[in-house]
Amino acid sequence: MKNKHFSPEYKAINPMSQVPAIVDGRFKLFESHAILIYLCSAFPGVASHWYPGDLFKRSKIHSVLDWHHSNLRRGTVGLVFNSIIGPQNGFPSNAQAAKEGEKLLVKSLAKLENFWLKDGRFLVGSLQPSIADISLVCEIMQLELLLEKDHERILSPYKKVVQWIEDTKKATAPHFDEVHDILFRAQKRFRERMATESVKNELKSKL
Amino acid sequence: MKNKHFSPEYKAINPMSQVPAIVDGRFKLFESHAILIYLCSAFPGVASHWYPGDLFKRSKIHSVLDWHHSNLRRGTVGLVFNSIIGPQNGFPSNAQAAKEGEKLLVKSLAKLENFWLKDGRFLVGSLQPSIADISLVCEIMQLELLLEKDHERILSPYKKVVQWIEDTKKATAPHFDEVHDILFRAQKRFRERMATESVKNELKSKL
Repeated sequence: MKNKHFSPEYKAINPMSQVPAIVDGRFKLFESHAILIYLCSAFPGVASHWYPGDLFKRSKIHSVLDWHHSNLRRGTVGLVFNSIIGPQNGFPSNAQAAKEGEKLLVKSLAKLENFWLKDGRFLVGSLQPSIADISLVCEIMQLELLLEKDHERILSPYKKVVQWIEDTKKATAPHFDEVHDILFRAQKRFRERMATESVKNELKSKL
Repeated sequence: MKNKHFSPEYKAINPMSQVPAIVDGRFKLFESHAILIYLCSAFPGVASHWYPGDLFKRSKIHSVLDWHHSNLRRGTVGLVFNSIIGPQNGFPSNAQAAKEGEKLLVKSLAKLENFWLKDGRFLVGSLQPSIADISLVCEIMQLELLLEKDHERILSPYKKVVQWIEDTKKATAPHFDEVHDILFRAQKRFRERMATESVKNELKSKL
């Protein structure tokens, strides 16, 4: 939020100036999926369901993580950035880009509902969560920044998706709420601003 | 080219109707990066440089493959689809989307030149090619569909990138040319069509 990812110190860790990135001893790494795989592999004692050793299960996790990049992620970021985060941070709002983002997001939610979640409580037919559930659920959590009515309109038709988000929250409690605290604080701020603007517009229309 | 990826038979393998996908016995898998990792892991005798067992080298390969999705790939596909493949297949041409694609492509080529290729002949400081070199070089190969002057204008400022493409071709000969045969045939067809259209337009302007 303070643009520290554009500082020379951060660029020495990730020259792309994007979050997240990690430093483990002398080893630097960026890209969230690569980091999740590294953490599961580098530290003993991480339960195997997060990143299974079984080749077939692991390959399916790679498949859904790769799919995520150009579908769910691109849709969510396209909608939330162009309708909320951008305009609140001095970028021009872009209704066309937001609309295209929402279209891809809705298409991706349907694929989650009807394909990725069809065989189990968690992604790719798993009974326990993996790094893929963490990555995709956290992406969807950005939608909390939308107005409540938009959030409800977009997500509620996808019953399995809604249940899966709840299941992932439970499976990662209490850490889930802890790491999302900053998001909920941003949500409160955005919604207050929008409410103020809506009152202003109402007053203007009466003058 | 014949839209067979929209057939029910193909959808049973990949419900996303995208290429590539593989079937190995009863196991189905899609997403090119997941497939490349699977092939290196499932078949004995694949040289370890393609997908190293070393955690640090492997993590860097995951990092560049993840980066690829939203940068080099998105830029290349955005440019080539909106300026060539789309219009040649009945979609309206979209000059704005093609321009945005080119912008992201050029930014990605600069990151390849100055970061990903800074420490070695191949990506992430390797002396021998990995699956990341295959994936990213093949993405760039789509630019062959552009007119020669555009191809030259976009790629030639990036000397290391041009050399790396050549090195990857050599390291994978004769298979590289074999798998790209269909691309070069499409290139020939596109360029002939463009030449015909250009002659037509010239005649029109004289009438």
